[in-house]
Amino acid sequence: MGEPLRVALAGLGTVGGGVVRLLGTNRELIARRAGRPIEVVAVSARDRTKDRGFDLDRFAWHDDTAALTRIDGVDAVVELVGGADGPALTLARGTLAAGRHLVTANKAMLAHHGLELAASAERAGRALKFEAAVAGGVPVIKGLREGAAANAILRVYGILNGTCNFILSAMEATGRDFADVLAEAQARGFAESDPSFDIDGIDAAHKLSILASIAFGTRPAFGSVEAHGIRQVLAADIAEAAALGHRIRLLGVAEESAQGLFQRVHPHLVPLDHPLAHVAGSTNAVVAEGNFVGRLLFQGAGAGDGPTASAVVADLIDIARGEWGLPYAMPAAALTEARPVDSGARRARAYLRFAVADRVGVLAEIAAAMRDAGVSIASLTQREAAADGTVLVAIVTHEGPERSVAAALERLRGSQSLAGQPLWMPILA
Amino acid sequence: MGEPLRVALAGLGTVGGGVVRLLGTNRELIARRAGRPIEVVAVSARDRTKDRGFDLDRFAWHDDTAALTRIDGVDAVVELVGGADGPALTLARGTLAAGRHLVTANKAMLAHHGLELAASAERAGRALKFEAAVAGGVPVIKGLREGAAANAILRVYGILNGTCNFILSAMEATGRDFADVLAEAQARGFAESDPSFDIDGIDAAHKLSILASIAFGTRPAFGSVEAHGIRQVLAADIAEAAALGHRIRLLGVAEESAQGLFQRVHPHLVPLDHPLAHVAGSTNAVVAEGNFVGRLLFQGAGAGDGPTASAVVADLIDIARGEWGLPYAMPAAALTEARPVDSGARRARAYLRFAVADRVGVLAEIAAAMRDAGVSIASLTQREAAADGTVLVAIVTHEGPERSVAAALERLRGSQSLAGQPLWMPILA
Repeated sequence: MGEPLRVALAGLGTVGGGVVRLLGTNRELIARRAGRPIEVVAVSARDRTKDRGFDLDRFAWHDDTAALTRIDGVDAVVELVGGADGPALTLARGTLAAGRHLVTANKAMLAHHGLELAASAERAGRALKFEAAVAGGVPVIKGLREGAAANAILRVYGILNGTCNFILSAMEATGRDFADVLAEAQARGFAESDPSFDIDGIDAAHKLSILASIAFGTRPAFGSVEAHGIRQVLAADIAEAAALGHRIRLLGVAEESAQGLFQRVHPHLVPLDHPLAHVAGSTNAVVAEGNFVGRLLFQGAGAGDGPTASAVVADLIDIARGEWGLPYAMPAAALTEARPVDSGARRARAYLRFAVADRVGVLAEIAAAMRDAGVSIASLTQREAAADGTVLVAIVTHEGPERSVAAALERLRGSQSLAGQPLWMPILA
Repeated sequence: MGEPLRVALAGLGTVGGGVVRLLGTNRELIARRAGRPIEVVAVSARDRTKDRGFDLDRFAWHDDTAALTRIDGVDAVVELVGGADGPALTLARGTLAAGRHLVTANKAMLAHHGLELAASAERAGRALKFEAAVAGGVPVIKGLREGAAANAILRVYGILNGTCNFILSAMEATGRDFADVLAEAQARGFAESDPSFDIDGIDAAHKLSILASIAFGTRPAFGSVEAHGIRQVLAADIAEAAALGHRIRLLGVAEESAQGLFQRVHPHLVPLDHPLAHVAGSTNAVVAEGNFVGRLLFQGAGAGDGPTASAVVADLIDIARGEWGLPYAMPAAALTEARPVDSGARRARAYLRFAVADRVGVLAEIAAAMRDAGVSIASLTQREAAADGTVLVAIVTHEGPERSVAAALERLRGSQSLAGQPLWMPILA
């Protein structure tokens, strides 16, 4: 049994508490598997007096998070403070500059500063590991960086936000509307009081940009992720999708082509014969398509103290074993600058839903706009009037470029026939 | 860019050919990701003259597989010869004894000789890696050894044999019977001409014993895996399972408890809300349940040249990066000897199917045997007579110990009412 790996832990919220509990409960097993014990020796958090269900006295306490970078004998710092900048970034920079390993669950920081931190880890010859930053407990960073490393990745996509999947699954199961389910999720602690990072797709976009870097060897490019959320999805859309043999899932999709790198978070229709259609609740799932391996799927709990702690400690075990390397597999300087590709040229079948006034001529107007924009309609259904007198029209298009659909919607903009914004969703192929 | 990793490759069948093609097609990408090129320098196979679609002249050819252990400058040997013993084992032993890394896809050899080979790799300070031995292209060895390393694993189970899953899925989709679908699978090359290793569960048992060792830190114990196959599954069972909201899948299940280690391959009824119910065709999928991470799922192609080559080359990339350690995560001497647990004490809901003579009193006889053995019946259905005049009776039991069901079947043994062997299948919980 070797010397312990000595860890300083910044942040004792849900995940930090989970890490302390996990390292306690599985202490002996981890020492056997890692070849040496993993010990938390110092912690930092906002409030020392808060009851966290475990004894803080065995750890050296630091009010100042940044002090964790200066403790003698610490091998690795675990950053669970959160936030793209501020104390988290100061700690991350300081840790690597001081020649210690860094483990973080901070997707926002990685999406914005991942390249800088990777270069710093490389200079220091230390690990920068972030399994917990994407898909919680699911080892998808490892799956891409190592498991699928022999493949050119054609596309990586998946369900990256548990809150959104929980809401969409609950809408599906109960027939209730978005606002209603969100309110309940908030009341039960499954959604933040300010849920916009989750439900507007920002959190998934952070994660997608991290996955894309590893999959394609490109510099993190969060700024070029198109992020859309699920606020516009109606219970009626979910019912309509079901009638079409599909479920609605918020997917992050990254795809590399000769044109460049496409990255988008958007609700999609997912066919029932695709495994992502069967991912319910707050579960996350990521698909990677490789040129030799075909389609790989990684699935599991996307959040929560236990699963996220599992990923954090897996990183520490890799470090304890000495089985770690460059954060993005290749040197930071070797990551390429990917040209962002917009969605206009992408070809897909799509779902379109309009809320329209219940009167003669509306369908003809929509159909004419589609025809004029060159959008070919595969099916059209019109559902009975809602309480407010509007009718829902759902259209499935044949495969075609997204810009044609955008042009059709542009033609209809401001039409007196439409009540509210139409909703467009691609159908996953 | 570092020195190349120089590889000798034994076996140029489907997988070996895939490895050569993959290392050619993705050559530059792999060098970028591994930090150094990976080069095949020598090969050995049965027949030099066979057309494999690529040029053999760039490799040093050896008729004698064992000669690959003696080539100067070779860093790693890839063993794709197959077979638990014989030339594969000679090569594996010789490679590690000569201080070279070994990568193998040989589940039978690992199931029987994994402990010895791991100890040998440990002594030599070299890698023994075998990602391709379980679930083809799916990085589940890595997922357990590293991704889930922070967890006590409670149970590991999954679809480990693509041929069986292909047959069961095809029976499900077409309503045809086992023998019929098998014959077609053989004609189309999806099943071996001697399919018993696959359809009798031996191949899955090899893989299960490997997963169990890594999950539980136990010595490989292939001898204590209960192996059952899918020959007894009728189209009528699949229809009956569907009516009950389930699909039939051949699962390998390994579970550790205070009593010891339980390992079994058996067809199961899988409920439709479980992801394994949606795994169709030759896809493999493995679930690991950890005490912190909860349920992790790894899924992808379980066989074929591309996926298997992807796993072999992932192992080589780990070696090229220097990111590898002990084969079973802990020293071979530290693996524990697990006490085998038989199935009698296991509690499960179960499906039972009897082919019975179409006459009065048969159901009463079955029901009495159940009652006398203490088996509680949850539902019973009787389907119309088959062409041969037999009727199928399907029973679902309440949860209870398996030994009670075995006792009930024992009571019915030799009954004039039964036509053929009853089929028992546990329902996955």
